[in-house]
Amino acid sequence: MLVYIAGAGAMGCRFGYQISKTNNDVILLDGWEDHINTIKENGLKITGDIEDNVKLPIMKPTEAKDEADLIILFTKAMQLPQMLNDIKGIIGENTKVLCLLNGLGHEDVIKQYISEKNLLMGVTVWTAGLKGPGHAHLQGVGSLNLQSLDPSNLDEVHQIVDMLNAADLNAIYDEDVIPNIWRKACVNGTMNSTCALLDCTIGELFASQDGVDMVHEIIHEFVTVGSAEGVTLNEEEITKYVMDTSVKAAHHYPSMHQDLVQNHRPTEIDFINGAVVKKGKKLGIDTPYCQLITQMIHAKESVLKIK
Amino acid sequence: MLVYIAGAGAMGCRFGYQISKTNNDVILLDGWEDHINTIKENGLKITGDIEDNVKLPIMKPTEAKDEADLIILFTKAMQLPQMLNDIKGIIGENTKVLCLLNGLGHEDVIKQYISEKNLLMGVTVWTAGLKGPGHAHLQGVGSLNLQSLDPSNLDEVHQIVDMLNAADLNAIYDEDVIPNIWRKACVNGTMNSTCALLDCTIGELFASQDGVDMVHEIIHEFVTVGSAEGVTLNEEEITKYVMDTSVKAAHHYPSMHQDLVQNHRPTEIDFINGAVVKKGKKLGIDTPYCQLITQMIHAKESVLKIK
Repeated sequence: MLVYIAGAGAMGCRFGYQISKTNNDVILLDGWEDHINTIKENGLKITGDIEDNVKLPIMKPTEAKDEADLIILFTKAMQLPQMLNDIKGIIGENTKVLCLLNGLGHEDVIKQYISEKNLLMGVTVWTAGLKGPGHAHLQGVGSLNLQSLDPSNLDEVHQIVDMLNAADLNAIYDEDVIPNIWRKACVNGTMNSTCALLDCTIGELFASQDGVDMVHEIIHEFVTVGSAEGVTLNEEEITKYVMDTSVKAAHHYPSMHQDLVQNHRPTEIDFINGAVVKKGKKLGIDTPYCQLITQMIHAKESVLKIK
Repeated sequence: MLVYIAGAGAMGCRFGYQISKTNNDVILLDGWEDHINTIKENGLKITGDIEDNVKLPIMKPTEAKDEADLIILFTKAMQLPQMLNDIKGIIGENTKVLCLLNGLGHEDVIKQYISEKNLLMGVTVWTAGLKGPGHAHLQGVGSLNLQSLDPSNLDEVHQIVDMLNAADLNAIYDEDVIPNIWRKACVNGTMNSTCALLDCTIGELFASQDGVDMVHEIIHEFVTVGSAEGVTLNEEEITKYVMDTSVKAAHHYPSMHQDLVQNHRPTEIDFINGAVVKKGKKLGIDTPYCQLITQMIHAKESVLKIK
């Protein structure tokens, strides 16, 4: 199988690295010059639970030519349309596309570029970090759930699941992945934006009763809008999942904190809280918490002149 | 007239200084040791539009003994009950109390300590800064509006207005001061908390369309709750006033930024946005913007361990 990783950040490197250890071909696609050059010259360096160095082909998205069997999308949310546009040439009639981006609403974007029968939606709890160009730091274990939006191609999709499991990625075919995607988006929507605005760790947010009160209101908006869209969401179960995550990840700064506060990069807010606002508006549902949080993040991007 | 300034911060020093230049006695009351000692030893230093140094009596609130003709309240909002408790000994049957604190709802607190017939509510647009203990920096001009809650004592109140005008404080007797107090609270409620959370100047907030959108929602909540309380508030006029203020004060960090971000001190949020939430709850009016902003400020106080 020829697998492209479209977006070779930390998570893309993890998936690319692990798949490269199987009997499949992997090509990383990314736009970061230093990252590309370092991996071309020295290979991809892996530290953490494993120490390794692998030769992996990496190129800019526009340079990819060979038709893909599978493309795993791992860009930042706002880079997705550009990526899909850049890789048109490798998308064949049977190329499967697995979307593992954070956030909500990506299927609507992807469907503009590929046929629904080839689209797999997924969500993963694997984590990874980049220590610098060409250097991924991998710790802990995770899993991923995925589902084909078109159930007629299950044989092909199960081959992909098998391939991902051969790469020890703990893939599960999920008959109803959308609620899991919402659940993860809800975790991000409660912690990422708030910790970025408050410049604090997840543990510090949840140590404050006011922080916890905010979290409950945000979860309620996600569940109300998701349910109105027909997604089966259990507010109590999601609340417990958010609370459990907050304990496990207490010492971490979420990715949006890394983007906004640490690196002054634009955030994915429009695909997390902002997506709930947008969907809520269509459905006639007020989402003032998600709306104010989205506005504050954008206002902060404006203050930092990164918007 | 014996005038006490209860709370000799920047604004208290301005009022105390200007009144000391008239034919009246002024005593400053404050709890900050360094400030008290510096003023006792070296006098109150004035810089800015005027350079001066005046000998002014200053003491802790509990040390004040002589019955006051007028007490001007200039504490931080959360220090008000303690101050009123500490100065019980100087409040006589005819002692007038003029409240010039920022925020909403102070009359309910003050009425627990003094009779309504002696209570004057006011609002001022004077500004002032403290450069350090014993050193006030005074620039620009301002004015103050005040009203007696009990109209039967207008003769006495007009003497106070005259005394304040003798001190060049541009005092106006206002037949309906409460809307002006709300209007100033609304300015604070749109800029103080948001600039504190976003760590930005007023100009930076208003340069962002998302920032301006937030401001409109906040004004709407203030006006809705105030109107439901019977206060005459014109949303369009207040919006224009907020916008004008944002232009004039574009380069400033508001006082809540100074408290929270620069000095890691607790904020007055419960008396600004938080007061609207509290009043809204009593009236059955949702105020999600004010509520989330109040929660975020408190969460940030918790993160900074100042709550």
